[in-house]
Amino acid sequence: MPKQVDHRERREAIARALWRVVEQRGVAQLSLREVAREAGMSHGQLQHYFASREAMLTFAMDFATEQTTLRVDRRLAELGDRPHPRDVLRVMLTELLPLHADARATSRMSAAFVLEALHDENIRARARDGIAQGRAAVEQLLRRAVADGYVHPDRDPVVETHLLLALTGFTTLLELQVIEPRDTLTAIDQHLDRLFVEDAEDDHGAG
Amino acid sequence: MPKQVDHRERREAIARALWRVVEQRGVAQLSLREVAREAGMSHGQLQHYFASREAMLTFAMDFATEQTTLRVDRRLAELGDRPHPRDVLRVMLTELLPLHADARATSRMSAAFVLEALHDENIRARARDGIAQGRAAVEQLLRRAVADGYVHPDRDPVVETHLLLALTGFTTLLELQVIEPRDTLTAIDQHLDRLFVEDAEDDHGAG
Repeated sequence: MPKQVDHRERREAIARALWRVVEQRGVAQLSLREVAREAGMSHGQLQHYFASREAMLTFAMDFATEQTTLRVDRRLAELGDRPHPRDVLRVMLTELLPLHADARATSRMSAAFVLEALHDENIRARARDGIAQGRAAVEQLLRRAVADGYVHPDRDPVVETHLLLALTGFTTLLELQVIEPRDTLTAIDQHLDRLFVEDAEDDHGAG
Repeated sequence: MPKQVDHRERREAIARALWRVVEQRGVAQLSLREVAREAGMSHGQLQHYFASREAMLTFAMDFATEQTTLRVDRRLAELGDRPHPRDVLRVMLTELLPLHADARATSRMSAAFVLEALHDENIRARARDGIAQGRAAVEQLLRRAVADGYVHPDRDPVVETHLLLALTGFTTLLELQVIEPRDTLTAIDQHLDRLFVEDAEDDHGAG
């Protein structure tokens, strides 16, 4: 195996160890030493791959974003060539929520990163950039959906983007088992149903 | 001052010190020792008021809930004798968001508590109870609003309750300054506008 690939794979294995620490024991336990233990290597070996806690954390977050994007892309591919924008938004939103094991791991990683961001300028800048990219993607999709007659023309794409992003608040409700996964999907579906014009494919521009 | 009152006041002062640790330095710094330092007392003195980290944390969370309820009640009193249910919901929701300094302190306390809840059974049970009480209050208000013709009769109070609770997801967007407070209020107002029938006071039951 080429050295470069091996290096990348080891970093990904460390990132997954970090996710496990965050998921199982919480962000308070998140130190280089604890992640090294979980990854089954020495503190010194881990430092060969990451020079600092921040470098490790940032890589682990980028890797979580990559894995989330892969899951979204896989589910979008199942929707066929010209997916309905409602279905695209549903996939994007639900893959951010801890509705299954893989999504729970990346969701907790993301929550830990946000928490670090509150007290670290560099991490805050990166966390903001990540969310800003997601926001831009949702807003672009909604603008096009309005133009194509899928979304009621009186809806403001910026406001609707903000509401959809805010619905990631289901994360806490799911984590604490206050709301069941099924009820979460029902609520998201109702929100999307009201955003989109019925049968727009047959009747573009209908209000 | 009676001893009992003094004891309660000292506990509240410690709770506020705990909030400051969480707000300024993050939940990772949240130890009895760190809170004692912030409260300007020794570790031993603090233990006179709280026997354990969990007892201290639970009291600080209960106190945050109390303070949030007081803020909500004060704002509701300003709405007069028979407030519109839309205005009541708006106050309840926005006082949970970090839109001003007091609300940011209690919001960060609440986020820290949720985080602890993920890895502590007792705290999880308490966190769930707290949210469940809030959910029950919102659902009851919505059921009455549907019955009184304020809310569209085709709306399901349970689903609408879930969506309103999920909108606490604005917390992260505000904390990371991805969305401005003004844009948050605009989005919440649009969500509420669509939930409530226009001019229901003059025209009960209008669809």
